[in-house]
Amino acid sequence: MAEWENNVRKAVPYIPGEQPKEKDIIKLNTNENPYPPSPAVKEALENFDCKEMRLYPDPEASELVNAIAGEYKVKPEEVFVGVGSDDVLSLAFMTFFNSDRPILFPDITYSFYDVWAEIHKIPYETVPLNSDFTLDPEVYTLENGGIVIANPNAPTGIYETVETIEKIVSANPGSVVIIDEAYIDFGGESCLPLTKKYDNLLVVQTFSKSRSMAGIRIGFAIGNAQLIKYMNDVKFSINSYTMNRTAIAAGTAAAKDSEYYKGTCEKIIRTRERAKNALTRMGFEFPDSKSNFLFVKHKTVEAKTIFEELKKRKIYVRYWDKPAIKDYLRITVGTSMEMQKLFDALTEILK
Amino acid sequence: MAEWENNVRKAVPYIPGEQPKEKDIIKLNTNENPYPPSPAVKEALENFDCKEMRLYPDPEASELVNAIAGEYKVKPEEVFVGVGSDDVLSLAFMTFFNSDRPILFPDITYSFYDVWAEIHKIPYETVPLNSDFTLDPEVYTLENGGIVIANPNAPTGIYETVETIEKIVSANPGSVVIIDEAYIDFGGESCLPLTKKYDNLLVVQTFSKSRSMAGIRIGFAIGNAQLIKYMNDVKFSINSYTMNRTAIAAGTAAAKDSEYYKGTCEKIIRTRERAKNALTRMGFEFPDSKSNFLFVKHKTVEAKTIFEELKKRKIYVRYWDKPAIKDYLRITVGTSMEMQKLFDALTEILK
Repeated sequence: MAEWENNVRKAVPYIPGEQPKEKDIIKLNTNENPYPPSPAVKEALENFDCKEMRLYPDPEASELVNAIAGEYKVKPEEVFVGVGSDDVLSLAFMTFFNSDRPILFPDITYSFYDVWAEIHKIPYETVPLNSDFTLDPEVYTLENGGIVIANPNAPTGIYETVETIEKIVSANPGSVVIIDEAYIDFGGESCLPLTKKYDNLLVVQTFSKSRSMAGIRIGFAIGNAQLIKYMNDVKFSINSYTMNRTAIAAGTAAAKDSEYYKGTCEKIIRTRERAKNALTRMGFEFPDSKSNFLFVKHKTVEAKTIFEELKKRKIYVRYWDKPAIKDYLRITVGTSMEMQKLFDALTEILK
Repeated sequence: MAEWENNVRKAVPYIPGEQPKEKDIIKLNTNENPYPPSPAVKEALENFDCKEMRLYPDPEASELVNAIAGEYKVKPEEVFVGVGSDDVLSLAFMTFFNSDRPILFPDITYSFYDVWAEIHKIPYETVPLNSDFTLDPEVYTLENGGIVIANPNAPTGIYETVETIEKIVSANPGSVVIIDEAYIDFGGESCLPLTKKYDNLLVVQTFSKSRSMAGIRIGFAIGNAQLIKYMNDVKFSINSYTMNRTAIAAGTAAAKDSEYYKGTCEKIIRTRERAKNALTRMGFEFPDSKSNFLFVKHKTVEAKTIFEELKKRKIYVRYWDKPAIKDYLRITVGTSMEMQKLFDALTEILK
């Protein structure tokens, strides 16, 4: 080992779902939306003036921030934007979880939370979910340096009510509570209104799922202006210009066309509900999902076997080789046609 | 102050040059390129398939990485890409400057270095430049936890030879030395070949200046594969997908069209050399610049006065109200026509 390697921050990174480069696959492994983004996005990119690319983008991405603020009926100074919700969440961890007390999050949840805690040197403790994967708000009264909850949770898909979330936020005035609502548009009710009542609540959402824009990298946080100012101070201490000109143009167009994404979300919800019936008939069990994925376990056949057999048939779903969830597969809800192909393959595999 | 505010990481952010939203200004304050990017970039965006935006981008941005590797004759595993060189540099600070010993950089240089050191809790010491703003490599033998040097330096524009840089790199086998070559394409010789000889050297460049792409946010680092692997481990612990699909498409097209950007750089160099003569005639003094800007001081009129008078005439240059450089203005080299308007305004102001 070279001498300089002693000074290196060594990290065990988060491993995202596979992104195979083949084209003729059915990709139900990273919770992407099966529908294209709003036609307004296409138009915005068609009207994009390439000559302006020589100039830095607006460091505040004001156009995008204002469009999001308009859509969610908050003030622009209550909105923070970043390069996907991962960027926003990592920055929120850095900004708000800066004490010696451990932060808390469920033992089964988005597996980036412990990676961010490690990389930012934040102590953490995981809190067990109930055996049915639901969350007990009473447990979040332990002394802590912050709390992060995904709602709906990943990879379970379970949605907790605004009342449950409020119990946690109100019990922890000394900590910032981050609610990661990446999947909220698929049937849950957002806790955004609580940001008016609690100054320690930060709600994070993304354009990657409901708005079909995983490829352009836009996430945002909404909270009281003081929380957002602290985040911006940290952001402007790392990179003045995170949102490029195409992201600002495309994102602004998408933010202003809410009708479109609400329509595609409704289609996905209908497909999901039909999938619940079909999968039940095939012998799968799953917690009730209000997200764009299902977290399923077969009564007799091992998850890993099904995962591998599906992959042979060019159908990609997500499997984790981790003790607590090794019996489960996470299946993204695709188009009706993609789901039919999945059911056909499963019928073949399970027979 | 609310109780949760005790846990907040409080930061004093870097303040970028003004980005005024008016259109009819002459903008010579943030070292942007006055020419549009390669026509290949326009073509790439015109061919961009908006439907694919629903899918995550390639987390490794392989197309872009491969194009950069091809252009600079290195292996793809020796290339790291990020959201502008600020993103790359901040991440390199996090990754490599992880000891209790102070990192070293010049007392007059890019003013983001101390901001990154503060935000990442890295101890640092600044090393004085010579009185003519040149760098003495012998001083970089103090015990240190890393070194960062901008070459050409900002805001002075002074270029140090590859031999000078090699002295610093070879004297510090125990530290990673980062050479920030944001402005190298305007007449300097890159120290990239040294990365084959020294495993502790990381060279950082950007598409924002010579390639006229400040608006799309692409920076990159080249170094031995082990350095790059460490950076990727940290990157993948923060955000799996930093480069969006439009940046990958536009950046790949630009990386493959080196002829174009070399042509615009030559034009800027010619304009800069003529500007040196014109400014000398007007009573300005400046260190010799090999960048796309000039760091000028007038013999009799105060920098702040000139800055304000230019602004009244809608000409933006950069001024810092800091003791060591308060007599200077940094002027980006624009088109010949923009420079003529600058000279006319200066003649009026100085008369």
